[in-house]
Amino acid sequence: MSLLVVGSMAFDALETPYGKTDKIIGGAATYICYSAAQFTNQVQLVAVVGGDFPNEVIDDLKQRGVDTAGLQIKADEKSFFWSGKYHDNMNQRDTLVTELNVLGNFDPVLPEAYQTAEYVMLGNLQPGVQHSVINRLTQKPKFIALDTMNFWMDSSLDELLTVIKHIDCIIINDEEARQLSGEYHLKLAAQKIMEMGPSVLVIKKGENGALLFKENDMFYCPALPLEIVFDPTGAGDTFAGGFCGYLSKTNDLSFDNLKRAVVYGSAMASFCVEKFGTERLIDLSRTALENRVQQFVDIVKFDLSIPLS
Amino acid sequence: MSLLVVGSMAFDALETPYGKTDKIIGGAATYICYSAAQFTNQVQLVAVVGGDFPNEVIDDLKQRGVDTAGLQIKADEKSFFWSGKYHDNMNQRDTLVTELNVLGNFDPVLPEAYQTAEYVMLGNLQPGVQHSVINRLTQKPKFIALDTMNFWMDSSLDELLTVIKHIDCIIINDEEARQLSGEYHLKLAAQKIMEMGPSVLVIKKGENGALLFKENDMFYCPALPLEIVFDPTGAGDTFAGGFCGYLSKTNDLSFDNLKRAVVYGSAMASFCVEKFGTERLIDLSRTALENRVQQFVDIVKFDLSIPLS
Repeated sequence: MSLLVVGSMAFDALETPYGKTDKIIGGAATYICYSAAQFTNQVQLVAVVGGDFPNEVIDDLKQRGVDTAGLQIKADEKSFFWSGKYHDNMNQRDTLVTELNVLGNFDPVLPEAYQTAEYVMLGNLQPGVQHSVINRLTQKPKFIALDTMNFWMDSSLDELLTVIKHIDCIIINDEEARQLSGEYHLKLAAQKIMEMGPSVLVIKKGENGALLFKENDMFYCPALPLEIVFDPTGAGDTFAGGFCGYLSKTNDLSFDNLKRAVVYGSAMASFCVEKFGTERLIDLSRTALENRVQQFVDIVKFDLSIPLS
Repeated sequence: MSLLVVGSMAFDALETPYGKTDKIIGGAATYICYSAAQFTNQVQLVAVVGGDFPNEVIDDLKQRGVDTAGLQIKADEKSFFWSGKYHDNMNQRDTLVTELNVLGNFDPVLPEAYQTAEYVMLGNLQPGVQHSVINRLTQKPKFIALDTMNFWMDSSLDELLTVIKHIDCIIINDEEARQLSGEYHLKLAAQKIMEMGPSVLVIKKGENGALLFKENDMFYCPALPLEIVFDPTGAGDTFAGGFCGYLSKTNDLSFDNLKRAVVYGSAMASFCVEKFGTERLIDLSRTALENRVQQFVDIVKFDLSIPLS
């Protein structure tokens, strides 16, 4: 099934306790596409870049089966740029520079072939822009997932609450789930958020794994304790790409398959953080992925077959 | 197998976002004993209380199979008292009052029958006191577990490092593991801590579950997302009691059985937080426990049997 991906494509300059980069390729849609392309070659990209964005990256995505007909290239403008510095614990970061550039007035264009997409992944963007993509679809998709962040809850809450009425799945982190719901305990937070529209909710907890909710079903996907988290940038987008890529490939929205999608998304994210930017995703083999997924199986495996008394 | 339990028995006065108590029964050894007694009736208690400690509690523990020959009752003195107030997120608390009273010069006495205990649970106490218990054993136990906290890392690090050379398992939370090891990433922290002595390490992560390490083996035990955490006091001690109670009952130190012990300990802790103090532990049925453990099985269960491609 086709997977429509909308999001930013950008340059990032990053500083982590392990090193520092000049401008490298980043952006939500970039990570989502690289991750989803592990699973499906039917990705349709909607994004905007400036004339400074390297053709090699666009060509690389095309070779992986990503349709770039929906990628607007504004030759005389500059791509979105973000620079940030991570604290020692990697859970907090300071934004040093944000230059919206072409993203400032992004008006997503959907080529006709995209307008009947069966799966849609709305990467983190202004909620009104996310909503405009839904409005430009001519056929109701099977599954629309949306990523967002606390910034939009602070600045565009009404628009966010409007767009999430029209989606099937929201993907946020634990602090965002608390902010959006006003509830501290995540089980209650999940119930309140699902009352806002989406029937499926993923709460990402970083090094503490992820929770999946659908109606009364709950699944706790662990994270693998890693020896190093080199650069967390894009981990959430990589999760979303793996999650939606897996779902669109398997075309099965049962809770059992949603669980598998969360595991595959988590495995993809665990690779993302091992190197700067998209570096680890680009050279990732299917075997490495399957081995990593097996580690997710093994780390939570226990057997109660021996009765206690 | 016999399980020797050492720790405080106390009065606590608690304030949480959900309510407030006058002095109620608390203390590490109290929680450990109530929890361990779900699994074994061979618990040997070493603790000290004042004349103000209620006989009913001691009798109740005896009825659950806890040997109280090692409980010193100092009739003319007062029991340890702690008062604390939890913040809204329940992960942070302020200590309002600490009155050591009888605990100030606690000198553990081990009746002869205790000196050959096979399993030992050293509850959170000054590390020198924990060490004195080990020195008073006449036979090397099969398994010594120790709980400690950041307070002792700040105030008695040398004594703590000495005692942990002589134990098999240390049980601490994630922040404490980071402090003790000087490593942020828990996998590296675990390696460093195991080099200090213990061959088994449990890192408790509160609402994010627990990690078990033994040599190169790792296990991630989830926590159940609860609708309410009414009072977190004693959750760690309850975990430790369930963990060691299960191990001493089953007398199997394989990694598979350590995993089961972590699951049972986590299930016990999930009950503890549902009511104030020991209230929920006292009336806990075996059926309720087994049902809760089944929820731990269910929440992490996923099936990858459908191949991706």
